[in-house]
Amino acid sequence: MNTAVQLSSDLLHELTNIVGENRIKTDTTSLQSWGSDYTKHFEPNPSVIVFPSSTEQVQALVQFANQHHIAITPSGGRTGLSAGAVASQGEIVLSLDKMNQILDFYPADRMVRIQAGVVTEQLQRYAEEQDMYYPVDFASAGSSQMGGNIATNAGGIKVIKYGMTRNWVLGLTVVTGKGDILHINKGMIKNATGYALQHLFIGGEGTLGIITEAEIKLERKPHDLQVMVLGVPDFDAVMPILHAFQSKIDLTAFEFFGELAMQKVLDHGHVQRPFDTECPYYVLLEFEAPYEPIMDQAMEIFEHCMEQEWVLDGVLSQSLEQVESLWRLREDISESIAPYTPYKNDISVLITHVPAFIKEIEEIVQSNYPDFEICWFGHIGDGNLHLNILKPHDLSKEEFFAKCQVVNEHVFNTVKKYNGSISAEHGVGMTKKPYLHITRSAEEIEYMKALKQIFDPNLIMNPGKLFDI
Amino acid sequence: MNTAVQLSSDLLHELTNIVGENRIKTDTTSLQSWGSDYTKHFEPNPSVIVFPSSTEQVQALVQFANQHHIAITPSGGRTGLSAGAVASQGEIVLSLDKMNQILDFYPADRMVRIQAGVVTEQLQRYAEEQDMYYPVDFASAGSSQMGGNIATNAGGIKVIKYGMTRNWVLGLTVVTGKGDILHINKGMIKNATGYALQHLFIGGEGTLGIITEAEIKLERKPHDLQVMVLGVPDFDAVMPILHAFQSKIDLTAFEFFGELAMQKVLDHGHVQRPFDTECPYYVLLEFEAPYEPIMDQAMEIFEHCMEQEWVLDGVLSQSLEQVESLWRLREDISESIAPYTPYKNDISVLITHVPAFIKEIEEIVQSNYPDFEICWFGHIGDGNLHLNILKPHDLSKEEFFAKCQVVNEHVFNTVKKYNGSISAEHGVGMTKKPYLHITRSAEEIEYMKALKQIFDPNLIMNPGKLFDI
Repeated sequence: MNTAVQLSSDLLHELTNIVGENRIKTDTTSLQSWGSDYTKHFEPNPSVIVFPSSTEQVQALVQFANQHHIAITPSGGRTGLSAGAVASQGEIVLSLDKMNQILDFYPADRMVRIQAGVVTEQLQRYAEEQDMYYPVDFASAGSSQMGGNIATNAGGIKVIKYGMTRNWVLGLTVVTGKGDILHINKGMIKNATGYALQHLFIGGEGTLGIITEAEIKLERKPHDLQVMVLGVPDFDAVMPILHAFQSKIDLTAFEFFGELAMQKVLDHGHVQRPFDTECPYYVLLEFEAPYEPIMDQAMEIFEHCMEQEWVLDGVLSQSLEQVESLWRLREDISESIAPYTPYKNDISVLITHVPAFIKEIEEIVQSNYPDFEICWFGHIGDGNLHLNILKPHDLSKEEFFAKCQVVNEHVFNTVKKYNGSISAEHGVGMTKKPYLHITRSAEEIEYMKALKQIFDPNLIMNPGKLFDI
Repeated sequence: MNTAVQLSSDLLHELTNIVGENRIKTDTTSLQSWGSDYTKHFEPNPSVIVFPSSTEQVQALVQFANQHHIAITPSGGRTGLSAGAVASQGEIVLSLDKMNQILDFYPADRMVRIQAGVVTEQLQRYAEEQDMYYPVDFASAGSSQMGGNIATNAGGIKVIKYGMTRNWVLGLTVVTGKGDILHINKGMIKNATGYALQHLFIGGEGTLGIITEAEIKLERKPHDLQVMVLGVPDFDAVMPILHAFQSKIDLTAFEFFGELAMQKVLDHGHVQRPFDTECPYYVLLEFEAPYEPIMDQAMEIFEHCMEQEWVLDGVLSQSLEQVESLWRLREDISESIAPYTPYKNDISVLITHVPAFIKEIEEIVQSNYPDFEICWFGHIGDGNLHLNILKPHDLSKEEFFAKCQVVNEHVFNTVKKYNGSISAEHGVGMTKKPYLHITRSAEEIEYMKALKQIFDPNLIMNPGKLFDI
């Protein structure tokens, strides 16, 4: 599998004819870099990296790949966490790096037309310049590309109010694996003319074709965001707090994390404990408060939660600076635990089932591996839990991962018991592929394979991802 | 085509074995009634109506249909406007009428699990009883069923804030044309595990399978809704008004209609002109105003619009009763123009293009048919225009429709020019089938046909709708 693959000079010449000089790389460093994503489980081994600059060039590349039976791995910001963009089998890596233009802005439609290589933060900044807002946000916004966000239906920290990337896509230009250019839905909010093909490409992980352009909806800017961090005595208190706030106030975020995560963030430096009381769990909630009565209401709900003993202590942001520093308590977790080589799972169950689910997982891990630390955090307002198991110092990486694989079986069986998802927002790629059957039935997987073959009959698009066929 | 089709008594017996006694109808009145929808262009001619009571019975019916090569037309509230639920070729009409239970409520998830036959208003009322809100709303909410809403991705009057039906579907149980039961997405907000099959069935018009159950998201109830009706001097003023309000206030609706529509509604009785000034166009906008400053802001924007001469006159609701009566100015239009045998089109273009689009259409109609009255109304906040041409008294129905068909060519050419949709929210069914190529490319239609064959290899599901295959 992983022997170096080299294209003949004839083929490289053909590729150069398509994309032009200086738009093709074959040096080892580039192959390593563009051939991989944030995961490090699979060895990158692409044959060439190409940087097309138009949809027509992408089409020509797909036609080339079909003709020569060479696979293509589409490549965006390479921030994926499931090896969906790793090219390990001699693929052509088709990078969207050079297709990074914002093409048009339609103020009346609150819509922007972009190329797929536009970086998330670039779009967020552009929106702000138009006095608008692109609300999908997450830690890797500085390097993830919109094409990749769409292909994985990226989520993040504002889903409770704004939904997933899917909600913001009003149209897509794609090149299918077969080589057709499709302009799907063309930016319309309402269009009831048959199957909504865009929704197959959204979250399709590049296995059906390549997204080259998109029409993206923008939103008005949020006004006067306020953040509260609350300490809670046990997990059972989290849901009543969510309910108490949500029934009165439109939350823009509702995140949670455990004391272990808090400690790791404090150890990491940069931020202070928000209040003295050490609590088993914390929730961070955010809302817009452009009107005085909203703040009064929030304080009233906070007091009610204290009376009910759902909350032990809490803090409300007093300034924009404090909004940012409170957010860091949540946003710095991943970075802070990175040195502990965490074994990560990104799972989702109905919010209703979260408390029971968390208890079961903790029992499983504690009874099997009492020396393992579990670092919980997540977007609890939408049922998405990041389960991170930290490696004890005295355990080798190999031993640790082997043990985690066993834990994983238990975790995924519990996910199955609660009809949950093995990948809430990170996609399947290669790392979750063996577990796809936990969330999708055998029949669904068969239909997915049949769909794949319609759009990509020669199976050249991102092979080895999602499922084997 | 339209000769009466009769199933043998053996086959009827088999059907009775599946659904039980009293769950099958073959009398002429029932065949006529359950075989048609709101459109009257096609003669209903089903062979039998069956009323299953479970997903398993639906599966057995689909297996029966595959075995005997008999087509099935799924049937909900039969309020469709594109003949998507008309059975004209001896189909088995599979009515969801008896599957009308609300099965579960998940307060923490703000989600309800329902059977497909639940009527829209039944869900709205149920949501209200839980102090929640189901926001998709339109004139036929009293009889349309949720399964049909999902199969056509119904829109309506609140799309500007809440989006289409698609946005509220968290999971679907379907029986595919092949006979598989799929439980898709199981109510999760976040689930990145391959192709989002639910989005093919949403808006699929029953051509891929039958929706039997759904998980539907609910929302918090809106607070203190306020309605404004504004008279505007010309269509070019409408967009600046939308922009002025939308940049400061979250609108829950932004509708428009012409003076002709206003006159027909006033002639119809029930409501009064909202202010004395007769204006070429009117907009109706709605927003939540739970806090005093929002009302002040709305009044400020209103005054600004008056100063700019975008608005000639206006009224703001002073009571809940007035909210309702102002809404009737918009909601009674369809009923008021019904006696004029209107030729209806439901089209959509980018909001940016609406002013130019409307002008072109008016010129086309006026230059070709100066005696035709055009009644415009629509959900202008999302680019959706209902174009209704009223029949002159002295013209026969046949002559009128023949002339409208010619107008239609012009209208759809203009839709094509603006990259718009021939059906914004009514679906394609049989009435828009000849025009599908205006909005969807030949390649897209080929992919759609291939998709259909995956889920429905024997082509038994709602044949003759969307496209011929």
